[in-house]
Amino acid sequence: MAFAERISRLGTETAFAVSLAAAAWGAQGHRIYPFHLGDIDLATPANITAAMDKAIADGKTGYCPGAGILPLREALAADVGARRGLELGPDNVTIHPGGKPVITKFVQALIEFGDEVLYPNPGYPIYESQIEFIGGKPLPYRYVPTDSGFAIDLDQIRSLITRATKAIVYNNLQNPISAESTPQEMAAIAELAIEHDLWVLADEAYFEMRYSGAPSTSIASLPGMAERTVILYTFSKKYAMTGWRLGAAIAPRALSDVFSKLNTNNESCTTHFIQWAGIEALTGDPAGAEAIRVTLQGRRDAAYDMLAAMPGVSIAKPNATFYLFPEVTEAMARKGITSLPEFSDRALKETGVSFCTRLHFGRPQPGEDRFYVRFAYSGLPEEDIREGLGLLGQWMEA
Amino acid sequence: MAFAERISRLGTETAFAVSLAAAAWGAQGHRIYPFHLGDIDLATPANITAAMDKAIADGKTGYCPGAGILPLREALAADVGARRGLELGPDNVTIHPGGKPVITKFVQALIEFGDEVLYPNPGYPIYESQIEFIGGKPLPYRYVPTDSGFAIDLDQIRSLITRATKAIVYNNLQNPISAESTPQEMAAIAELAIEHDLWVLADEAYFEMRYSGAPSTSIASLPGMAERTVILYTFSKKYAMTGWRLGAAIAPRALSDVFSKLNTNNESCTTHFIQWAGIEALTGDPAGAEAIRVTLQGRRDAAYDMLAAMPGVSIAKPNATFYLFPEVTEAMARKGITSLPEFSDRALKETGVSFCTRLHFGRPQPGEDRFYVRFAYSGLPEEDIREGLGLLGQWMEA
Repeated sequence: MAFAERISRLGTETAFAVSLAAAAWGAQGHRIYPFHLGDIDLATPANITAAMDKAIADGKTGYCPGAGILPLREALAADVGARRGLELGPDNVTIHPGGKPVITKFVQALIEFGDEVLYPNPGYPIYESQIEFIGGKPLPYRYVPTDSGFAIDLDQIRSLITRATKAIVYNNLQNPISAESTPQEMAAIAELAIEHDLWVLADEAYFEMRYSGAPSTSIASLPGMAERTVILYTFSKKYAMTGWRLGAAIAPRALSDVFSKLNTNNESCTTHFIQWAGIEALTGDPAGAEAIRVTLQGRRDAAYDMLAAMPGVSIAKPNATFYLFPEVTEAMARKGITSLPEFSDRALKETGVSFCTRLHFGRPQPGEDRFYVRFAYSGLPEEDIREGLGLLGQWMEA
Repeated sequence: MAFAERISRLGTETAFAVSLAAAAWGAQGHRIYPFHLGDIDLATPANITAAMDKAIADGKTGYCPGAGILPLREALAADVGARRGLELGPDNVTIHPGGKPVITKFVQALIEFGDEVLYPNPGYPIYESQIEFIGGKPLPYRYVPTDSGFAIDLDQIRSLITRATKAIVYNNLQNPISAESTPQEMAAIAELAIEHDLWVLADEAYFEMRYSGAPSTSIASLPGMAERTVILYTFSKKYAMTGWRLGAAIAPRALSDVFSKLNTNNESCTTHFIQWAGIEALTGDPAGAEAIRVTLQGRRDAAYDMLAAMPGVSIAKPNATFYLFPEVTEAMARKGITSLPEFSDRALKETGVSFCTRLHFGRPQPGEDRFYVRFAYSGLPEEDIREGLGLLGQWMEA
């Protein structure tokens, strides 16, 4: 059975393999502490579910426009605009079944065969997969450790840009490393984008998953950027709606028209009544979302404190996201372990703690000589976090 | 703002323009009879909605596998297999947000740049759009009128096939013309597919929307066909779930694996709790779906009887689908109208009856000298059908 050549260029999320390994170990009767997946174990706020039920009772079970229903596009224009200081209207907003389709549509609309696209590595693996699938050339850019976390290696980015470079994926409040740009770094990325006439995919999935630090800002708000930036917006994190599949692209109007046409072709529309639930999320009682944020902040603090106390673990405390990204080079040496797969496999088998490693977020770049792992704290209760990381700490000490 | 070249090859559903024209006329205070859109104005059966609510209460709001949840894939393998005499397992089934994404993924997985793909014209316009978008060469094939409806012009298909022909889209129980293959015709298509080693996209969206005639059959059931056929399955029609966005691809296992990987890249997964509603649709009380079918049969009969009685209208009575496709060549001549856009525009303005024409379903083929229009009877009550077509009949008579 011969598939089209482009299928050979399609990547995937190898983190799912970690899920399978954890599930297989759990199926043998072992207790698992699942730090590997960036999903949320908390319920969607009840007012959001109630708004969906009302929409169904009101007959919102038929097709709706490919761009999404107008009142949700208006509500998003108001909410996203106000939080970022942007003047947006519904013509800047298209609704999609999740944030991920925005990556697909960004590359479909803008990237020609052979165009180069900058993207973060370590980073969300779907960027690289979608760039290569559409025929673009992926240019991974790296981060360097700082006292407070990670910084983009701007010198490396400058060295990578050529006349064929068309776009940059910029995931501030980053998965997996929780990197957060300083204002200076964000301005430098914007300057590069303007100087080299690049499109920017601003993946702002974690914009509102913030527990500390100054309020989040968007690169789209900087001068000259709104007209070259697509914001990836998702309801998944803030409202614990990962499985609902509701997201949006915020884009210049002409590009929104293209996204809308792609929607008409690819999926007709996003689930109609779920869009009405989205309006309630944005405009209704925010208490549920705030409770989710507070719960996750407690988990972040617990997980950070326990990991920071482990021998050979070096870790920064991020202000946002679902993720901690400790360096474990010394911890591995203490255990006599020389590879990340061995480290995560032994941790799973000897403690039940399951996590992803740096290797699940892109091919290591030349010169990388430190080892990192990713802990997602969004998918298990604080009690389990304490129990699991307690076992992991004992194992590290042993 | 320059988009990728492929965007210039993207088509759309021009039927949405008919919706806009009808809405604009309605906004001026005119009564509209919407026969233009293949949507359903009936409620989704309550047991299906209840199953979704239960799934949410059970916490099915997080991510699920890209291929879909196993119990839904098992239920579909059983249901689709039993109705078609196919041996299917869950590995043959992937879940998608509607039937339309199956078209996208079929061409993404199988069609190289320059590959030729046969597709019906008149036909669902997204076939042509997706074939051209992916870089394939669309080969439209035509139908000829018969005493009982339409038949595929097999001689024309044979004349179109070259060594570059890779696939055929076969939409038995067809939108818009409601064509239904005889067993001989279906066997002839299968024979061509085998002889020329073609993939077949069997769009079976209306397989269970049948009111009369022998039970539906699938080309996938013919010898040698299962291994080269992808069945497009949708919950949209039978269960009045158009806006829910729930569909599936039934495919050979290796191709299902590719579809699953595309899902992981493009949309993560289809809405989790909606998949549990799909299980109830397939395995729960079928009374709701049967009531929908009976209601639609009443609408078909009413619409057929009234259209058949109009002067200059020639019409067959289809056994399935949501559509009637009368020839109006003589009716137009009686009114002194020479183009389909003029005909539909005058009908809208002078009677409020809104419908699509043959021109919304692909570019007319050489030699076409008869005029056809499409009436969708799924979106308005029988009472409105009678009232609207009563006005249209008076206008035709005048």
